[in-house]
Amino acid sequence: MMRQAGRYLPEYRAIRKEAGSFMNLCTNPELACEVTLQPLRRYEFDAAILFSDILTIPDAMGLGLHFVEGEGPKFERPIRSKSDVAAISVPDIASTLGYVTDAVSVIRRELKGQVPLIGFSGSPWTLATYMVEGQSTREFRLIKGMLYDDPESLHMLLDKLATSVSQYLQAQIDAGAQALQIFDTWGGVLSDAAYREFSLFYMSKIVADLSHNKDIPIILFTKNGSPWLEEIADTGCNALGLDWSVGIDDARRRVGDKVALQGNMDPAILRTSPTAIETEVKRILDAFGDGPGHVFNLGHGITPDIDPENVAAFVRAVHSQSVN
Amino acid sequence: MMRQAGRYLPEYRAIRKEAGSFMNLCTNPELACEVTLQPLRRYEFDAAILFSDILTIPDAMGLGLHFVEGEGPKFERPIRSKSDVAAISVPDIASTLGYVTDAVSVIRRELKGQVPLIGFSGSPWTLATYMVEGQSTREFRLIKGMLYDDPESLHMLLDKLATSVSQYLQAQIDAGAQALQIFDTWGGVLSDAAYREFSLFYMSKIVADLSHNKDIPIILFTKNGSPWLEEIADTGCNALGLDWSVGIDDARRRVGDKVALQGNMDPAILRTSPTAIETEVKRILDAFGDGPGHVFNLGHGITPDIDPENVAAFVRAVHSQSVN
Repeated sequence: MMRQAGRYLPEYRAIRKEAGSFMNLCTNPELACEVTLQPLRRYEFDAAILFSDILTIPDAMGLGLHFVEGEGPKFERPIRSKSDVAAISVPDIASTLGYVTDAVSVIRRELKGQVPLIGFSGSPWTLATYMVEGQSTREFRLIKGMLYDDPESLHMLLDKLATSVSQYLQAQIDAGAQALQIFDTWGGVLSDAAYREFSLFYMSKIVADLSHNKDIPIILFTKNGSPWLEEIADTGCNALGLDWSVGIDDARRRVGDKVALQGNMDPAILRTSPTAIETEVKRILDAFGDGPGHVFNLGHGITPDIDPENVAAFVRAVHSQSVN
Repeated sequence: MMRQAGRYLPEYRAIRKEAGSFMNLCTNPELACEVTLQPLRRYEFDAAILFSDILTIPDAMGLGLHFVEGEGPKFERPIRSKSDVAAISVPDIASTLGYVTDAVSVIRRELKGQVPLIGFSGSPWTLATYMVEGQSTREFRLIKGMLYDDPESLHMLLDKLATSVSQYLQAQIDAGAQALQIFDTWGGVLSDAAYREFSLFYMSKIVADLSHNKDIPIILFTKNGSPWLEEIADTGCNALGLDWSVGIDDARRRVGDKVALQGNMDPAILRTSPTAIETEVKRILDAFGDGPGHVFNLGHGITPDIDPENVAAFVRAVHSQSVN
């Protein structure tokens, strides 16, 4: 379940309070391991997901990540010009992001092979939106300005990010990650042409860079990415993450058996009742039909206001109703 | 151009200030006419779009619409329960929304046949989101709660809204509107099954209700609606509004010649330069290719921060590069 560790669990809130800050949790491998394992003690999830943040790479590039309570992530030194882009480098993973790979090793050790561990990264385009805007945005004014007025600088930035993401994910594999997900949270705000040029192209590069790792599935997820499902599947990735707007049956028809499908329940349903959750789980399972290749999941992250009992109902419904 | 009258024009801001409030502009037919015509004096638009608000129907139902500076629309009496839904009725258009149909008549008279006038309404689902949430939302917690926990009440609400929208649009036709657009701004936040049941179904009803009006094209627009283009085209509407995430060439392949296509430039491009605007207009025109059936437009509304000179560049680019 996306964001399966987190603020909906009281035991997470307790450890988060103790740690003092969100980044203290992410940068301490023992705490990151504890938080990764918390939901697995409560629920029969079929995989563990590394607890971390998508903005670790820009932070390692020196942008100065910090979190402002109630406002989300901010960068002290956003990227606004060609010279800003020129000034940043692909970070040395071992010295700047060793806390992430250490967390992967500790989690693998503690999991004792019980379930596989999924690592992840943000997509280059999604990371660039935060780096250029300096914070979360709904408008994407600065990054779309760069895209249309100075595409060369944006390509230079995305190229550095793609190399960084490839090295970062390779380091996660080397530390023990058994599957990888690339989150392209903001690819869906682009025009179809811009998506291909500024988001999909760089995710394809990463998939190619990692393709020599046998048996490490790569999952690509673009929120609001339904216009491009065929093209995402053509990158050579192993699974597609689907948000809830696309029918999983339609997605299957469009991409065939080339990739597995992960998704696609609206996380809002977790806010309702066990009965409504069961109905929706059944609807999605029926839409997918028989056969392998479905990783049941939410279509995006769980939100902090969810009752843990409803997560239990969700996991029970998926397990009891799945035919394989 | 969607929201072609509005805050990006200094002459609009002047008249808005004079009127005292946004609703004073909407409810005064002479002022609504003046504001509708302002952009046509500056630019060679091929159609006029009625200046109004999508929330006039809920206001006519007695929910108490008001606008809070910097926060957008609010309702004093939102719809939260089955009894709230039961208590509202389809409004009598002549007595509650006569200011809109009067504006249509005045605008038609002032336009003197120069360009056609497009009327519009929000879709039932989109209106319901504001009525239940009581304001704008990015989360849709209350309405999705109603959808999954008490779908019967939501259907009752949507049914009243569909009847109201049909009567409202018929009244606009009777007053002189020559084409109609139904804006489903928030259909794209639904799961594919929920979209069909709670948004598309009611838009189809409205299209059927209005189908006896010969020569009045109906345009349906669902933002982030790319999963459902074929089904939207199958409602019997005459044109599809497209946001920028779907390629207009892909859309044409998917729906054939059944409907015209309206769109689909990212409004963010208006923030850049005349050169970038020309390039993007050409890209979209080339993607559409030869043949009739393309209404060039933005993929969503223009924002208040756009330089009027860039709108001029946009209109010039569309006219100079169009082959028909």
